[in-house]
Parts: sequence; C-alpha cells; structure tokens
Amino acid sequence: MAAVPDNAITPKLTLVGAGPGDPELITLKGIKAIREAQVILYDALANAILLDYAQPDALKIYVGKRKDHASYTQPQINKLIVHYAVHFGHVVRLKGGDPFVFGRGYEEIEYARKRGIEVALVPGISSAIAVPELQQIPLTFRGKNESFWVTTATLAGGALSKDLELAARSSATVIVLMGLHKLAEIAALYSSLGKSGMPVAVVQNGSLPTEKIVTGTMETIVEKAALEEIGSPALILIGEVVSLHHPKQPSITKKQLA
Amino acid sequence: MAAVPDNAITPKLTLVGAGPGDPELITLKGIKAIREAQVILYDALANAILLDYAQPDALKIYVGKRKDHASYTQPQINKLIVHYAVHFGHVVRLKGGDPFVFGRGYEEIEYARKRGIEVALVPGISSAIAVPELQQIPLTFRGKNESFWVTTATLAGGALSKDLELAARSSATVIVLMGLHKLAEIAALYSSLGKSGMPVAVVQNGSLPTEKIVTGTMETIVEKAALEEIGSPALILIGEVVSLHHPKQPSITKKQLA
Repeated sequence: MAAVPDNAITPKLTLVGAGPGDPELITLKGIKAIREAQVILYDALANAILLDYAQPDALKIYVGKRKDHASYTQPQINKLIVHYAVHFGHVVRLKGGDPFVFGRGYEEIEYARKRGIEVALVPGISSAIAVPELQQIPLTFRGKNESFWVTTATLAGGALSKDLELAARSSATVIVLMGLHKLAEIAALYSSLGKSGMPVAVVQNGSLPTEKIVTGTMETIVEKAALEEIGSPALILIGEVVSLHHPKQPSITKKQLA
Repeated sequence: MAAVPDNAITPKLTLVGAGPGDPELITLKGIKAIREAQVILYDALANAILLDYAQPDALKIYVGKRKDHASYTQPQINKLIVHYAVHFGHVVRLKGGDPFVFGRGYEEIEYARKRGIEVALVPGISSAIAVPELQQIPLTFRGKNESFWVTTATLAGGALSKDLELAARSSATVIVLMGLHKLAEIAALYSSLGKSGMPVAVVQNGSLPTEKIVTGTMETIVEKAALEEIGSPALILIGEVVSLHHPKQPSITKKQLA
C-alpha cells in the first residue's frame, strides 16, 4: 500500500449516513459511495455489515467512539480523513444515522475542505425520525401538533439544554437523542411545568432485531425504563403522539390472532 | 386484471419514503418494496423515475396533490389503498421525503390497519434534514446550538403556528417545510423579537439538478427570494448555522478555479 503521496490520486471525502441500524436503511447513493471508496472510516453506530459493499482491497478502519472506550478524538479523526484521502484517494466516512444530525460531520468536511479536499455528502436516515416511525408513532398529527423538536439532552458541559424547557412548553413532539442518562431530569422538568401526565416513550436499538420500547408518562417512565433494563443507544420521544402507539406489527398481531 | 377479491391475495400496505427528490436518495429497503409491489400509489413529490423499479405489470397510480390541481382527497387515497390491497395484494404508497414527516402517513396506515390490512413502514430521507445538509449547512453546531425544530408554517386554518414563536425564542435551528407563502410573516415575527439580523436561507427543489438557494437575514430574505424567483416546493432554514454556508461544491469550486 502506498505510503507516499501519488499524483494519480484525487483526494476526496464523502460523508455517508449509514441509517439507524437496519442495513437496508442505507440509500442507494450511500452504497455507491462505499463501492467506490479506497478507504472507509466507520463509526460504532454504523452497521458493519455495510462494509461488505466495499472493494476487497479497500481499507476499513474503525474510528468509533463509545463511552467506555478510549478511542480516537474528533481532531484525530479529522487528521485521519485527510491523511487517507491524500494517500489513498476517496475516503468514505460512514456514520450512524445522518452525518449532519449531531454527528460532527460539518467539522469533518470543514477540516478537509480547508486542506483542498473535495467533499460530498450523502444524507442518511436519521434515528430521530425513523425510530419513532418504525414504532408507527407519527411525529406530528393533525389537531394535536404541527412541529417536532430534535435535541441532545446535554450541552458539552453536562447541563440540560435550555431549549428543552421551551420545547416542553410547546406542543412540539420532542425527540431526545443520546439522552437516556438525563431521563429523570427530563421527567422532573416536565413535571415542574405541570406536565407529569405527558406521554413518553424510550426506544433502545431502534430498527434492529434487538429493538425494545417502553412507554409511559413522565411520572412512570423512569421506573419503567429501569424495570425493562433499557440501555443505550436509546431515543426518548415525548408528546401526545406517543399515545397513538400500537404494539408493532406483524409479530404482535400474529400473537393476538393466535 | 382481477376485479373480484381473490383468496390467494394477501393484502398489504407498505408506506415508502422516496426521499427529497434525487432518485438515489431512496433506501435499499424502499427499492425492494417497490420491486415486490402489485400496486404503487405515488405522490407529486416522489420522483417518478423510481417507478422503473416496479414489476412490468404493477399498477402505477398517480395520487399526487398539488395546489392548482383538483386531485384525490386524503379520504379518497385511504380508500384507494384499501381497494387495491384487497384486490391486488401488496400496495406500496410512495411518498416524497419521509412518510411520517407531515405526510399524513399515519392516517393511511390507521385506515388500512382498521380494515385488517398488514402495514409496514420504510422511512425516507426527509427534506427537513437532507436539504440543508446537501447545502452543507449543519443543523446544529457545537457552541452555537444543540437542537433543531421542524415545523409547517401554517395550521389547517391558515394561521401561523404558535410553536414558531417559541422556536424563534430558542437557540434551535428552525426548519419550515411548505412555508414559502408565509415567509414575510415569519420574517416579521423574528423582527418583532429583535431578531431581524437572524440568518435565513430558502432552498427550492433541494437535492434536484434544479436546486436553488438564496441566503440573507430576516430583513433581506423576502426581497431576495422574490428577486431570485424562488418558488415551491421550498424549505426555509433559520438560525445562526446558516452563516456557515459555503457555495456548493464541486460546481462552484470549478467555476472559481477557472
């Protein structure tokens, strides 16, 4: 493998959204980018099965960050992207969900662009929308509300986002990504606003065979999520629309019919 | 073609998100569903090229609603879905963007489910996220904000959504779908909150070769959008993140280099 820059190489970075987990929820454009790549840098949340689309001699490098693992930092990933693009050509940065939804994708393309590397984006199916949807919970419903709000629970400093209070006062459906550790705090916020009866759902491993959901209200959800041993990665869905939830078809329907 | 119910037929409805317009931004799962369908009911916003994936003898029925055309009503579409599922089998309802983002998809699956029809969902790439992303504008950016809010501009009655005012007070990036006709009203709302300098972008035909973008502030955007003759379908993107916008690569870069 070349270690010295080659003039025949055209450095390129394509950010590709891998979708929420189900490997069939990647786009055709995403698959094409993986097929063309000389190097794939992939995340913990991107389904590794997608690497099977790559050329046999493509480099496949895991750069995932998980809470309990000391892994690459964001500046290190930025440098790796540029290094591999310059030395090998087309780098696909395969990220879970959508690369521009809390994925720090913008930082990666900015870093590469400033170093003269052509950048392209392939959007992915975001868990924020797809995970409630696969549970057949609509994000908005005529007569109930007309907006939805997607947030991470915490700021870099660890405090609950101030926007969450404005969101809680609105009729918007609120989707909190990566916020399971803040569930009790979120429930307390809603209760302090007189909304302890607000329906809420927590979904772990959305779109995967291991998907789990627990529903309740702000009063009951913390205990229920603990009882069901819901763990990360999980999405919190808050709003009247949660009351529209049905148990998932077809497996439940078959049971009901039996 | 059968006009009488056939016991060999298994009625099924799959809602499929066609994505924002670029035909390569459909998921692999969406393509598979189209390939399996006996009937495809498709919208104005779904790219008709996707119908090429269908079986040669599949029925392809346009049920799009556009402002200036008297087309099918939602209750009529619900009935058509059930009619075709019962008489022909697997119906794919192909909708622009994501079927659960203001798509009334939930109403369609509820109607079918209540009539005993198995339902399934294939999420699509939503314009709400992908259109800003393809313009390389991140929805959130560390240090600037940590949430985004997606809304339609108007309620069924025609009034501006009340949630929009709460959103305007927050640090959330605000994405308004199908709201071009309310642009002046939105600009006035932000100005009344002392936010006339807020960056805003309007993108028409996002993800298509005909894509157009205009950027400005709440003070300038109405005039700029009129000058550039921006028309529907268009997305309005509001927030400090809009100032991170670069002209799109690679076409602009090539021009700059020439």
